[in-house]
Amino acid sequence: MKKIAVLGSTGSIGTSTLDIVSRLGDEYVVSGLAAGSNIPLLLEQVRRFKPKIVSLKTKEEAARFKEDLGGLPVRVVFGPEGAEEVARFDENEVVVAAITGIEGLRPTAAAVETGVRVALANKESMVVGGAILRSMAASSGAEIIPVDSEHSGIFQCLAKERRENVRKAILTASGGPFFRTPLSDIKNKTVAEALAHPRWKMGRKVTIDSATLMNKGLELIEARWLFDLTPEELDILIHPQSIVHSLVEMRDGSTLAQLSITDMRVPIQYALTYPERETSELPALELSRVRSLEFFEVEEDRYPLIAFARQALEEGKSLPVALNAANEVAVEAFLGRRIGFSDIAAIIGGILDRHRVCEAETLEAVLAIDRETRVQSENFIKQRD
Amino acid sequence: MKKIAVLGSTGSIGTSTLDIVSRLGDEYVVSGLAAGSNIPLLLEQVRRFKPKIVSLKTKEEAARFKEDLGGLPVRVVFGPEGAEEVARFDENEVVVAAITGIEGLRPTAAAVETGVRVALANKESMVVGGAILRSMAASSGAEIIPVDSEHSGIFQCLAKERRENVRKAILTASGGPFFRTPLSDIKNKTVAEALAHPRWKMGRKVTIDSATLMNKGLELIEARWLFDLTPEELDILIHPQSIVHSLVEMRDGSTLAQLSITDMRVPIQYALTYPERETSELPALELSRVRSLEFFEVEEDRYPLIAFARQALEEGKSLPVALNAANEVAVEAFLGRRIGFSDIAAIIGGILDRHRVCEAETLEAVLAIDRETRVQSENFIKQRD
Repeated sequence: MKKIAVLGSTGSIGTSTLDIVSRLGDEYVVSGLAAGSNIPLLLEQVRRFKPKIVSLKTKEEAARFKEDLGGLPVRVVFGPEGAEEVARFDENEVVVAAITGIEGLRPTAAAVETGVRVALANKESMVVGGAILRSMAASSGAEIIPVDSEHSGIFQCLAKERRENVRKAILTASGGPFFRTPLSDIKNKTVAEALAHPRWKMGRKVTIDSATLMNKGLELIEARWLFDLTPEELDILIHPQSIVHSLVEMRDGSTLAQLSITDMRVPIQYALTYPERETSELPALELSRVRSLEFFEVEEDRYPLIAFARQALEEGKSLPVALNAANEVAVEAFLGRRIGFSDIAAIIGGILDRHRVCEAETLEAVLAIDRETRVQSENFIKQRD
Repeated sequence: MKKIAVLGSTGSIGTSTLDIVSRLGDEYVVSGLAAGSNIPLLLEQVRRFKPKIVSLKTKEEAARFKEDLGGLPVRVVFGPEGAEEVARFDENEVVVAAITGIEGLRPTAAAVETGVRVALANKESMVVGGAILRSMAASSGAEIIPVDSEHSGIFQCLAKERRENVRKAILTASGGPFFRTPLSDIKNKTVAEALAHPRWKMGRKVTIDSATLMNKGLELIEARWLFDLTPEELDILIHPQSIVHSLVEMRDGSTLAQLSITDMRVPIQYALTYPERETSELPALELSRVRSLEFFEVEEDRYPLIAFARQALEEGKSLPVALNAANEVAVEAFLGRRIGFSDIAAIIGGILDRHRVCEAETLEAVLAIDRETRVQSENFIKQRD
């Protein structure tokens, strides 16, 4: 039996995870859930999966939730500490870390500290605190298995290959909805247009990050820490069909690639069952139906955020924290229709220019830099108004 | 130091192997060579790589060769027994089995019996004697590492995966020169047209087998024995770019693929260095230059030999032996301009119809069935004249 806690259970990855848990059968049970916004769905999840602990956002919501549950024997906690308590719950064997954004950092770190398997969907925690999480995992014995499809692909391609055999890891990007848009039209793209992702159904934040390619930039930084690769060993290719998730080129010229249909349940299930695989009833990939897999270099003019991400990847220290914070604020402002699409790049560029790189070796330091950069970013947006 | 014997050293795979050996540096040396037709090249190879034993086709050639060598301390042997002696030479650590056709069976088996690593390029020996070679390898401890690019790809994708995790292995085929030819034009295609392979530079026999897709049919049967897969677990896709060599679909819906430039030196080197990889100076794969990878189902009308290969794959026993023998005779007759391109299928179909399936559990039985089928095939061709 595998006991699984899901942090961010009502989000896109969270609901897919619970779908996989129910498909996998009795061997997999849910030990804990933590969620933010969708309380009716969380209630349904608790009734169905019977976790022993559940965390909500506020004290008031937790109290009401407890009542709604009737007599169900569930410990109900709340707030950031609540999510951490779910992460540390001592019955957990796997923690699926799927709280989006910097909010996921502390709960993810809490899970890593307990030494269980962490199925990592919260890429931001690796982006801002990769070195910290890696050293925590080295002490606790935690196994960090990536859930992002690209990183799951690399993880599978690497299999038993020795580090020195790897020449390059290539993450693919769909290119988002604006891959073929004339460059001059991009700056006026609306929120609705940016949210119309051609391949993947995902949350709003990550969908905008796909349109800017920042998602791939963050994934480069994540890959650096997950697989101990240098910036020169990491690359991106645009692959509009999103069937090949990543490729690993070996030093002998042989390349391994991982492919699947565009359904996050494939990498989620792998992170739960690894090193085993379980039979899945998801539709199989039929390459003769897809017919053609295309690959293109990244145009830097089209995706200016990639240069910022590369800069943060190379410089390290506090720069990825600033990058991520400025991006979260800018994307939020775009989704709130306060700025235009191409302002996202202008804001991140402006913030990185002003950022003074410093060490970021503790969670506290990371969170302080994050907060500070958010304030700066907000001010920067206001000054532009 | 790894000591390598090359059976079929002057052929396409043989010369590529020696090129790789010289690129790999002092760690790799040549212990023995066996060759058939190109004596000047063999002489050059012996002078350069200084094997301790070399085998030629006939006694007369061997005597003349010995003289030409001057005082070089090389044991010179000849004939089928000579090739077997090279295969069994007790200093060998790797034997590259690259004699084409049924002729390669005994030397390949001899190498397998000694318990060394066999880098297998002679697919016919697995096709006709897969069960025999597998049981020999189980007794001797020989490691059979495939050299065919498709099987090398499957081998690499399987890595540490457990057998029960594999749902399907897919071998790709370029489709050969007639993939887009109107069906009605195929029967009049000339030898020169059939030899104009769009992707791979190979020997004449295997190039014709690529045009008919029989090469892929034989590879299905080879894969069955190399990887212990059932006929239902083996599939073919046409992939004109020949960049993806094979794909392995796992039962969880994840697919791993192996890609490289179309250069046999990539899989040859892997078979020599496995489980390590060594840095190669061959050009790297640049997917953004290839741009598009296409995949198509196999049209059975276009490639009638695939149905015969499937039948032999499913039936087993003596049928793959008959298939291979009839194909070798038919291809030889086509190359000799005695029959037309589409007669190849007619002859193989006719022979398989007449063949009475029997056991083929020893090398002697296999070779007897092979001889008998060749005579039948020759008679069949003559009757048609």
